[in-house]
Amino acid sequence: MAMQWVQSFDDGDASQRDLLGGKGANLAEMTRMGLPVPPGFTITTRACQAAMDDGGRSPDGLMAEVREAVTRIEHSRDLAFGDRERPLLLSVRSGAKFSMPGMMDTVLNIGLTPDTLPALAARHGNWFARDAHRRLLDQFGQVVLGVPDEVLARAARPILEAAGVTDSSALGEAALVEVAVAYEAAIRDHTGRPFPWDPWEQLQLAIEAVFHSWNGRRARTYRRLNHIDDDLGTAANVQSMVFGNTGPGSGTGVAFTRDPATGEHRPFGDFLLSAQGEDVVAGIRNTEPLARLVDHFPTCHDELLGVFERLEQRYRDMCDIEFTIEEGELFILQTRVGKRSARAALRMAVEMVDERLIDPATAVGRFTPDQLERLLHPRFDPDVDLDVLTTGLPASPGAASGQVVFTADEAEARAAIGDDVVLVRTQTSPEDLHGLVAATGVLTSRGGLVSHAAVVARGIGTPAVCGAADVEIDDDQALFRVGDTTVHAGDVISIDGSTGQVVAGRVPVVAPDTPKELDRLLEWADDVRDMEVWANADMAPDASVARTGGATGIGLCRTEHQFLGTRLPLVRRAILATADADEVAAMQELYLLQREDFTELLEVMDGLPVTVRLLDPPLHEFLPDLSGLLVDQARGDFDADDERELTAVRAWHEENPMMGIRGVRLGLLRPRLYATQVRALLDAAMARAAAGGDPKPRIMVPLVATESELVAAIAAVRAVADEVLPATGAPFDWKVGAMIETPRAAVVAGAIASHVDFLSFGTNDLTQMTFGFSRDDVEARLMPLYLSDGLLPDDPFATIDVEGVGHLVSLAVTAARAANPTVDIGVCGEHGGDPVSIDFFQRLGFDEVSCSPFRIPVARLAAAHAALATDPDVDR
Amino acid sequence: MAMQWVQSFDDGDASQRDLLGGKGANLAEMTRMGLPVPPGFTITTRACQAAMDDGGRSPDGLMAEVREAVTRIEHSRDLAFGDRERPLLLSVRSGAKFSMPGMMDTVLNIGLTPDTLPALAARHGNWFARDAHRRLLDQFGQVVLGVPDEVLARAARPILEAAGVTDSSALGEAALVEVAVAYEAAIRDHTGRPFPWDPWEQLQLAIEAVFHSWNGRRARTYRRLNHIDDDLGTAANVQSMVFGNTGPGSGTGVAFTRDPATGEHRPFGDFLLSAQGEDVVAGIRNTEPLARLVDHFPTCHDELLGVFERLEQRYRDMCDIEFTIEEGELFILQTRVGKRSARAALRMAVEMVDERLIDPATAVGRFTPDQLERLLHPRFDPDVDLDVLTTGLPASPGAASGQVVFTADEAEARAAIGDDVVLVRTQTSPEDLHGLVAATGVLTSRGGLVSHAAVVARGIGTPAVCGAADVEIDDDQALFRVGDTTVHAGDVISIDGSTGQVVAGRVPVVAPDTPKELDRLLEWADDVRDMEVWANADMAPDASVARTGGATGIGLCRTEHQFLGTRLPLVRRAILATADADEVAAMQELYLLQREDFTELLEVMDGLPVTVRLLDPPLHEFLPDLSGLLVDQARGDFDADDERELTAVRAWHEENPMMGIRGVRLGLLRPRLYATQVRALLDAAMARAAAGGDPKPRIMVPLVATESELVAAIAAVRAVADEVLPATGAPFDWKVGAMIETPRAAVVAGAIASHVDFLSFGTNDLTQMTFGFSRDDVEARLMPLYLSDGLLPDDPFATIDVEGVGHLVSLAVTAARAANPTVDIGVCGEHGGDPVSIDFFQRLGFDEVSCSPFRIPVARLAAAHAALATDPDVDR
Repeated sequence: MAMQWVQSFDDGDASQRDLLGGKGANLAEMTRMGLPVPPGFTITTRACQAAMDDGGRSPDGLMAEVREAVTRIEHSRDLAFGDRERPLLLSVRSGAKFSMPGMMDTVLNIGLTPDTLPALAARHGNWFARDAHRRLLDQFGQVVLGVPDEVLARAARPILEAAGVTDSSALGEAALVEVAVAYEAAIRDHTGRPFPWDPWEQLQLAIEAVFHSWNGRRARTYRRLNHIDDDLGTAANVQSMVFGNTGPGSGTGVAFTRDPATGEHRPFGDFLLSAQGEDVVAGIRNTEPLARLVDHFPTCHDELLGVFERLEQRYRDMCDIEFTIEEGELFILQTRVGKRSARAALRMAVEMVDERLIDPATAVGRFTPDQLERLLHPRFDPDVDLDVLTTGLPASPGAASGQVVFTADEAEARAAIGDDVVLVRTQTSPEDLHGLVAATGVLTSRGGLVSHAAVVARGIGTPAVCGAADVEIDDDQALFRVGDTTVHAGDVISIDGSTGQVVAGRVPVVAPDTPKELDRLLEWADDVRDMEVWANADMAPDASVARTGGATGIGLCRTEHQFLGTRLPLVRRAILATADADEVAAMQELYLLQREDFTELLEVMDGLPVTVRLLDPPLHEFLPDLSGLLVDQARGDFDADDERELTAVRAWHEENPMMGIRGVRLGLLRPRLYATQVRALLDAAMARAAAGGDPKPRIMVPLVATESELVAAIAAVRAVADEVLPATGAPFDWKVGAMIETPRAAVVAGAIASHVDFLSFGTNDLTQMTFGFSRDDVEARLMPLYLSDGLLPDDPFATIDVEGVGHLVSLAVTAARAANPTVDIGVCGEHGGDPVSIDFFQRLGFDEVSCSPFRIPVARLAAAHAALATDPDVDR
Repeated sequence: MAMQWVQSFDDGDASQRDLLGGKGANLAEMTRMGLPVPPGFTITTRACQAAMDDGGRSPDGLMAEVREAVTRIEHSRDLAFGDRERPLLLSVRSGAKFSMPGMMDTVLNIGLTPDTLPALAARHGNWFARDAHRRLLDQFGQVVLGVPDEVLARAARPILEAAGVTDSSALGEAALVEVAVAYEAAIRDHTGRPFPWDPWEQLQLAIEAVFHSWNGRRARTYRRLNHIDDDLGTAANVQSMVFGNTGPGSGTGVAFTRDPATGEHRPFGDFLLSAQGEDVVAGIRNTEPLARLVDHFPTCHDELLGVFERLEQRYRDMCDIEFTIEEGELFILQTRVGKRSARAALRMAVEMVDERLIDPATAVGRFTPDQLERLLHPRFDPDVDLDVLTTGLPASPGAASGQVVFTADEAEARAAIGDDVVLVRTQTSPEDLHGLVAATGVLTSRGGLVSHAAVVARGIGTPAVCGAADVEIDDDQALFRVGDTTVHAGDVISIDGSTGQVVAGRVPVVAPDTPKELDRLLEWADDVRDMEVWANADMAPDASVARTGGATGIGLCRTEHQFLGTRLPLVRRAILATADADEVAAMQELYLLQREDFTELLEVMDGLPVTVRLLDPPLHEFLPDLSGLLVDQARGDFDADDERELTAVRAWHEENPMMGIRGVRLGLLRPRLYATQVRALLDAAMARAAAGGDPKPRIMVPLVATESELVAAIAAVRAVADEVLPATGAPFDWKVGAMIETPRAAVVAGAIASHVDFLSFGTNDLTQMTFGFSRDDVEARLMPLYLSDGLLPDDPFATIDVEGVGHLVSLAVTAARAANPTVDIGVCGEHGGDPVSIDFFQRLGFDEVSCSPFRIPVARLAAAHAALATDPDVDR
C-alpha cells in the first residue's frame, strides 16, 4: 500500500525536516545509520496541514495507513498492539520542522489497557505495570482529554499523603492502583465519559491531540517569538515504547555529545535509574551525572560514546540525545543538534574547526551575535564581599538583580512597567514561558541543568540559577526561606548564572573575561563580512579601546565632549561674548585645545579614517540650567555674572532643543564655531603628516535638512582648508560628508549625496523625528506600554524600525547611490551595534557601521552573519 | 530678402510673443489694427538667443537685415537714417515675452549726429535739437557705453547751478550746448574713446546693449523673483522716433483704459507737454492728469478714447498705453495688458463679465489669491486720532508701520534681521527693487501713480504712498523733514497706501471693508474649484464666522481649547488625581462642558462635516510653569497644593514636548481622556439628531506614528460608540480618521488609510518633524538668516516645502489611495490657506483644504485657481 500520510523510520533521512519534522527526520537518519532506534514511523506534516485545513479532522485514510505502519512495528519487535500476550505499547510525540521544546505534546504508554496490563506485569514486574498504568492515565488525561493538572493532583493527594511521599513514582504497587482508580474516576467525572480503553481509539486520540497542540496557546506564543510560520504544522512520531522504568536494570537519560554549558569536548548529561524520560526533564527526582553511567551499565556506556562519535561526524555539530536502557539494552529515542550556552557555542565552533569538522565560515555562522552579547554579560564584581544566601546550579550565565516575584504573570506585569524582576519558582513549565522572557533572572529550587528553566533561560539569554535546593518557597505567603533568612516578594536579590550564587540585595557587576577562542572566531568573522566596523569614539582613550577591539576606523567623533569639563568656562566665554574680539579670543583658546585632542586621536588611529562630527548640540547645553538660575535669583544669591548668564540662557533657551538651533544650523548662525573646529582638525592632520604619520580625517556636517545648508557648510569648510592646506593639495587623504538624520535629508539624499564623499545615517535622531518620539520623554513613560501592548514589536531606538525609519533609509540610499555612485554610506546611530539592524544595513549595501567601542566585537560578528545571510552561495 | 532675425511691425500679431516679445507682438498687433503706430520692426528673441549662445556677439547677417528693415521705415516716413536733410531718428527698446518693467534698456534718438542735428533744428526748433542731443549723450552714455550716472551728473552740475535749475530740461539752448560738450568730454574721458557719431554704429551698439541688458543684474534678479526662464532672451524693437518734446504743440503720456488703482471704467493716466516718455515715468516733472488732455488736444483726446475702446475689445482686458503727440499728431508707442491694484483687478474682472467681455471663469483667473490677500490688507484704525504728517498719493493699498530707512540696501539688511522698515526715497529706480521687496512700506516724495515706486509696490503688494511733495529728504543726514517735524532713520512711521496718509509713530490697524464685487467673484470661484474649503475652528463663534465666509465644513476643531480658561482647574484635578474615583469625577464634569461645546458647534455647522481632533497637546501644558513653581518655592511662597502641583509638573515635564507624550500617545496612556471626548461628541450628535438636526461629526486621532496605535485608538472610539449609539446604528453620519503629521505616518499611510474614513495632513507638525525644525525655536532666530541667504526659498511653515515635506505627502497620498480608494484626504495645517500650497494639494487630488476662518475667501479663490491651473481644458 502506497503511504500518503505516513512514512516509516526506515524510509527517510535527516534532509526531510519539512515533511517529517526535525524529530522524525533525525529518527529516520539514525535508523538509516543503524543506531539502536526503537522502530516506528512518522505521520507527516502534510497530514497536520490537511487536518488544520479541515477544522482539525484527521485526513481520510490516515488511520488505515497508521494501522499498516503499526503492523510493521509489530513484526519488527515481535509484539502486537493490544495483544494480551505480547502487548506492544506506543508513544506519540510531536515534532515540527523547527524545535519547539516543551511546546507541544507527547503521549506515552499507548496501548496499555486492562487487557494488556497483565502481560506487561508478567514481563517487567507488577510495580512497573501499575506505574505505567498510572502514568498513562495522568498523561493521557491531561494531554489528550484536557483534564487539568489540579484535578488529577487533587485526586492523588490523599494517597500520597497517606504514604508520606510527594511524588507517585515513590509509591508502592497498592498505592499506585489506588492512584489509578482515583485518576480514572476523576477523568470520568471531569469529561463525563469513561476513559478510552480501546488501544486504537487511544492511538487515534493521541495523534489528534498532537496535531491539535500545534495551535495551542503556548505553541502559538513560541512561534510568534521565534518567527516560525503558523502554517508549517507538526509531524507526529509513533514509536515502539521501550521502558527505562522496569527496575534497576533499566534507566533513562538525556545527554549531549559535548558540554552544552562550557563547550568542553566530553559527554555530558544526566540519567535516572528506573525512570521514564519525562522524569529526567521534569526535575522531579535528582539525577545522576552521565559520567556515572559507566558504573551501572558499562557496555551501554561504551555503546553510547560510539553513538556520540557517529552522530557528531554525521551532523558535524554537537547533538543532544534521549536514551533509554531497557533491561540492559540501549535505545536512542531521539536526537537533534543540541542547544548550548553562548560560551559553549563559541568553544565548540572554534574547536570543531580545529577538529576539521567544519570550516571557519560555518563556525562564524554557529556563534550568533546574541550569544556573543550574552557572553559579554556582566558578572558579580569579584571585589565585593557577597552575602551569599546559597549556591545552586549555574544554569544560564550572566548576573542579574531584581525584585523577587513568584509567578510568571507577575514577572510579566512588573517587567512591563520597567521593573527588573527575578522569577523564583520551584520549577518551571512551558506555561511559565512569558515569565521567563520577562524576567531579568530566574531562580529555581529544583531541576538540573537540562530542566525546563535552564534550557529556556540559556536559549533566551536570561541568567538563571537552578536546583538551589536550600531555597524553600512558600507560594501562599509569597516568600522564600534560605536557612534563617526570609526573602519576600518585592525584595531585591541577585543571582549569578555563571557561578550559581544567590545573594540578598543588589550586587555591583563587572564585565566578564573574554574567552580565549573569541579572537580567532572574530578574525574569521572579519574574513566573512563585507561591511567595515567602526567605532563611535570621542577621545583618544576610547579610540584606543575601539582599535584594540578591532574597529578599523572612527565613524563618529562627537566634538561636544571637547567643549565640556575644564573647557566649559571657555565655551561660555565664547557664547557670552558681546564683542567680536572676545569671541575670537575664546575661540583661539578652544582651537588650541581641540587641536591637541585631534592630534592624539589621529595618532591612535593612524592609517584609519577618523570621522569628526562638527559641533551638534544646542548652545544652551553649555550654559547653566534656567530653573536653577531663577531659583538663585529668587533667593537673592545673584551677581552681575549670573545676570549675564541668565540673559544668555534666556536668549538660547529652546522649547524643543532636539529640533532647535543645533548642528549645521548652529554652524551657519555662529560661523566661527565650525571654522575653528575644521582648522584644529586640519592643522592636527598637517602636523601628523609632517611627522610621517598617515592621518585620514573625515569632516562630517550634522543635522542637515536641505541641500543649501550643506552647500553653505561645505563652502565654509573649504574656505578654511584653502587657508590651512598647501596650494599643492593636502599631504593626506581627507573627506567631507553629511549626516542623514532628519527625515527631510533622507528624502533629498540624492541632492545631498552629490556634494559629499560620504553619508552617515544618524539613526537615533532619524528615529526620533520620523516617529516624533523624543527619546528623553517617551522611552521611560511610553515605551513600556507600547512594547507590552504590542504596539511596537521592538524598541525602535534599539532595533531599527524597518517599516518606517528603514523605509526612509532605503529610499535615501537608492537616491544617494544614483546621484553619486561612489559615495561611502555608513551608520553611526546606536543601531550600528544592533545585530538585527546590522543585517538591515547589509541588505542596503552599507559600507560601514559604527558603534560604541564595547560593542565592536558584537558588530563584527553581526556583520559577518549579515554577510552570510545575504551571500547567495550560502544555502539556508 | 528673406529675413532671419528681423520682422516688420506690418508682418506680425499679438500671438507672436515668444518670437517678438510682448512689446513687439503688441506693436505688430496695433499696426495690424491700423492704429497710429510709428513704423518699425522687431529684432526677434531668436537673435538674442543666438547672441547669448555666441558670447554676446550679434548673429551673422543681423545688421544687413536691420539695414534692409530701416530702409522700409525710411520709405514709410519719407526720412532717411543719417541723412543731413531729412534725418530719421530711431529708438531701440527691449521687450521680452514677459513684461519686466524697467528691468532692461531703452535707447532713444539714435541717428542724431553733428551732421543730422541742423536739419532737426530746422524742423523742430533749435532748443529741441539741443535737448535731443543732450538726451542722446546722457542715455547712450549710460546705457550703451556704461558711463556711471554720477560721472555725467558731475559734468552737468556747474552748468545747472549757474542756471539755477535742477534738471537739464529747464535749461536754455546755450546751456544745453554746454551740457552736451561737458557730457561728450566726460564720456571720452571715462571710456577712453570718442563718442560714436556714426548713426549705424550707434544703432548696432544700441541693439547689442539691449541684448546685453537681458543678463544684467537687475534683470536676472527680476526673473528669479518672477520665475521667468533665463533662456527666453529679449527682443529689440527698432522704431521711428516721434517727438513729444518739440514744444507746446507736442506732448507725451502714459494711460490706462481703466483706473488701475480703483478699477473704475474710465480712462486714466498722466501726460506732460513737450516731453519725452521717460520724463513721465521718471517723475522728474509734475504731470497733468489725462482728463486735461482734452483741453490741449481735443482731437487727439477723442482719437485716444477710440484707441482705448478698440484695444479693450481686442485684448478683452484693461490695457496700458504709451502715447506721444508730435505737433498735434497722435502716435501710440506701445501697449500691453496693464498692471492693476488688487481692488482694481477685482472690480474689472466682475465688471467685464457684466460687459460680456469675459466669462466668469476667466474673471476668476484674473483675480489672484495674492491680490485678494492684499485687498484684505489692514488699514489704519479709523477710531484712532492720527498725527498726520502729510498726505501723498495713495499708490499701493494697505497700511504699514516700520522704522525709516533711506536706502534699498539698508531696507534689505534690516528686513533680514526681522525689522519692519519703511523705505523713504525721493523716487525709486529699478536699482532699488531689492529694497522695495524687503520693505514693509514705501514712501516717495516725487512721482505719480505710475511712477516706478507705485507700479512696483502695487505689483508686489507693498503699501506705498508716492509723490508726498511736503517730504524733504536729506540723504546725507539720514532724515526727512515735513514742515517742523524731523524724522530720523530708525524712527517709526506709518503709511496708509489706500489714503496716502503718512503718520509719525505706529498706528493700530483694522481689517478693511470687503469690496462689493467680492462675493460674486467668490461664487464663481466656488463653481470652478474641485476641492472643498473647510475651516479650522474650535468653538461655535469661530465656526459661525467660517460658515459665513463660505466654509463648507470644519476640518479641524482643536479640543484643547475646551480644556482652558475656567475649565483649567477641572483639567488639573483630572491630571493630579491619584485615586481613580477622583479622575472619573473630574472627567464627568469635563464631559458635561464638552458636550455643551459640541452641541453648539454641531448646531452652527448643521448639515456640514465637523472634524473633532481628540486632545493633542501634552498634559504639562495644562499645568503651571516649572520655573515659576521653583521660584515660588525658593521664596518660601509654597503650600501643600503647590507641592502637589510641583510633583505633577515634574512628572509630566518634557525635554521636547513637541515629540513627547501627546496626541494618540496621551490617549492610550490616559484612556479616559479620549473616551470622555468621544462620548461628549456622540451624545451631542445624538441629541441634535433627535431634535431633527443633521450632525456630521468626524472623529480625528492626532499624531499617529504607527498603524497599531491608530488601531488601538479606533477600538477605544468604537467601544464608546457601542455604548452611546443605538444597536441599530447611529441616526447620523459619523466618521473616524487619522492625522498624518509624523513622517512615519506618511511613510506607512497605506496601512493607516485601510482603517479610516479620512486622513488629514497636519502639515505644521509634519514640517517640524521632517525638517527637525521646532517652529517655536527656529522661526525667529534661524528663518530670517535662511531666507535672506537663500538657504530656503520660502518659509516652509507658510508655503509647503514641495521637495521635502511635499514628497512625503505625495508618497502618502499614493499609498493611501491604493490601500483605500474611497478615503477622504484633506489638510488642516496652516498650508491649507496658502495659495501656492493649495495648488500643490490640488495636484495631489486632495478632497479638501481647511484653514483659519479669516483665510476662507483666499482659500476659496486659491482652490479655484488651482483647479484652473490643472484643468486640461484651460490653455495657459
